[in-house]
Amino acid sequence: MSKLAIVGTVALDSIETPFESGEEILGGSAVYSCLGASLFTKVGICAVVGGDFPEPHARLLHSAGVDMGGLETAADGETFRWKGRYSEDLGDPETVFVRLNVCENFKPKLTDRLRNAEFVFLANMDPVVQMEVLDQVKNPRAVACDTMNYWIENSPDDLEKILKKVNILIINNSEALDLSGEKSIAAAARAIMKMGPGTVVIKRGEFGSAMFSDEGVFCAPAYLVEKAVDPTGAGDTFAGGFMGYLSGNGAGTPSDMKKAVVYGSVLASFTVESLGTESIKNLNKEKFESRFREFMRMSQI
Amino acid sequence: MSKLAIVGTVALDSIETPFESGEEILGGSAVYSCLGASLFTKVGICAVVGGDFPEPHARLLHSAGVDMGGLETAADGETFRWKGRYSEDLGDPETVFVRLNVCENFKPKLTDRLRNAEFVFLANMDPVVQMEVLDQVKNPRAVACDTMNYWIENSPDDLEKILKKVNILIINNSEALDLSGEKSIAAAARAIMKMGPGTVVIKRGEFGSAMFSDEGVFCAPAYLVEKAVDPTGAGDTFAGGFMGYLSGNGAGTPSDMKKAVVYGSVLASFTVESLGTESIKNLNKEKFESRFREFMRMSQI
Repeated sequence: MSKLAIVGTVALDSIETPFESGEEILGGSAVYSCLGASLFTKVGICAVVGGDFPEPHARLLHSAGVDMGGLETAADGETFRWKGRYSEDLGDPETVFVRLNVCENFKPKLTDRLRNAEFVFLANMDPVVQMEVLDQVKNPRAVACDTMNYWIENSPDDLEKILKKVNILIINNSEALDLSGEKSIAAAARAIMKMGPGTVVIKRGEFGSAMFSDEGVFCAPAYLVEKAVDPTGAGDTFAGGFMGYLSGNGAGTPSDMKKAVVYGSVLASFTVESLGTESIKNLNKEKFESRFREFMRMSQI
Repeated sequence: MSKLAIVGTVALDSIETPFESGEEILGGSAVYSCLGASLFTKVGICAVVGGDFPEPHARLLHSAGVDMGGLETAADGETFRWKGRYSEDLGDPETVFVRLNVCENFKPKLTDRLRNAEFVFLANMDPVVQMEVLDQVKNPRAVACDTMNYWIENSPDDLEKILKKVNILIINNSEALDLSGEKSIAAAARAIMKMGPGTVVIKRGEFGSAMFSDEGVFCAPAYLVEKAVDPTGAGDTFAGGFMGYLSGNGAGTPSDMKKAVVYGSVLASFTVESLGTESIKNLNKEKFESRFREFMRMSQI
């Protein structure tokens, strides 16, 4: 049985940064978060790829220990593709193109193993589809979801419904402000908690993250990388590390939740250090633990 | 004897923000940092004002315990004035005008008490003037300075000279990148340490601060305020809290240095909560300690 079920996209990304570039490399929210979580827990993926999805990519996920039973192949279709271009400051990328392809009409079907997962992460996607997934899971201890500006603007009612059902929202700084209409993240988090999630985790890129719940607020800086190369997938890696820690270790005490934030933060720091999944796929527990200890020294008095 | 000597500006600021505005209110780098530091140590100011400087402002600084012996009054001149306008996001303000007035030809003369100060903070000003101050101090345990883009671009040689003489540089994120020509703050801090300062403290506004030294790096988030109103003086308040803690408590151990960063961060959070010096001048040790404890809960596991 997978302890953590992750539903999201598997993509072939083309990425241009001032430092490195690549065409049709492995990407997608479910890939980054599964690779991240796989270091700490038994994770299963639910996603769809086309008949053109390269076999080595599937093998990579499998070798990382990801339960592939929920990876559907639409043999006649093409895999989701995205091309993005970053400028010097590695801020929000310009989207050169998005081709939804097989993702366009994807109806996630959870395997029995995934239905019984204790933890669920719904990566950014149509809130209607997120709800369809949620209807299939049996009795999870905690469900987290992500979303983005597109759904905040275009599907507020559907988003409202899913927010009532999830325990944790993991979201970007600017999206938290947009979703709540507030100007500070403290006010935004409080407003979002009223919409449903007991815990709101706000990702702030190179500036770290902040978690809000009835226990109060916890802020973690980002691990300071020597040179950021490509931020693609960092937010999904964060979510994978956060949920991976919870499902692998945590009983959900306040201190577990704080440690989960730090796990997410440290894990995401690897992703930004090289193009696409290059760093995160080569990561092992020793390298992670070493940076985790360094992070504790750099953030704790 | 003052334990901490602070040299900088005393100003009459006019500030427009979308939330609150004020004309000719008390401001200036030396004012914010002295008010901040005065909570934790015996601080003395060295600055100049014109004959038009309102007496109540001088009384305010005096009541806060600031040694005013070094505040020169150029009776025939006018006090330094600055007008700034902030947009909704409270980022870098648009400067509507700057009138240097009595600051234009200011030659700081330290009193004997200030010459013997154990700690010195040189707020942002012409590096030539910073050097003139440094030539007057006797045997300080630590000297910190701030600078800004104007001097980085226009007086690189003078800045280089002062950086060789100071122990601590306290500087903004973007200025650290400009000064070093690097793209990440980790690389920037290392490059700046080679220019002289053994410790580099980088201020990142609402995203906290990072301190670099041979002991490694320490990152602190900013205290999350409910509503930021006016960021004017937050960086100088940070510096005042940082140096105030060191001179009031610290023997300069690694843990003292970390705690000084947190003191600066917590102190600056009060400044942004209201217009000008409104919050910081009404702050007392109890209110500070209470927020400090809250900060520890929100940043420590």
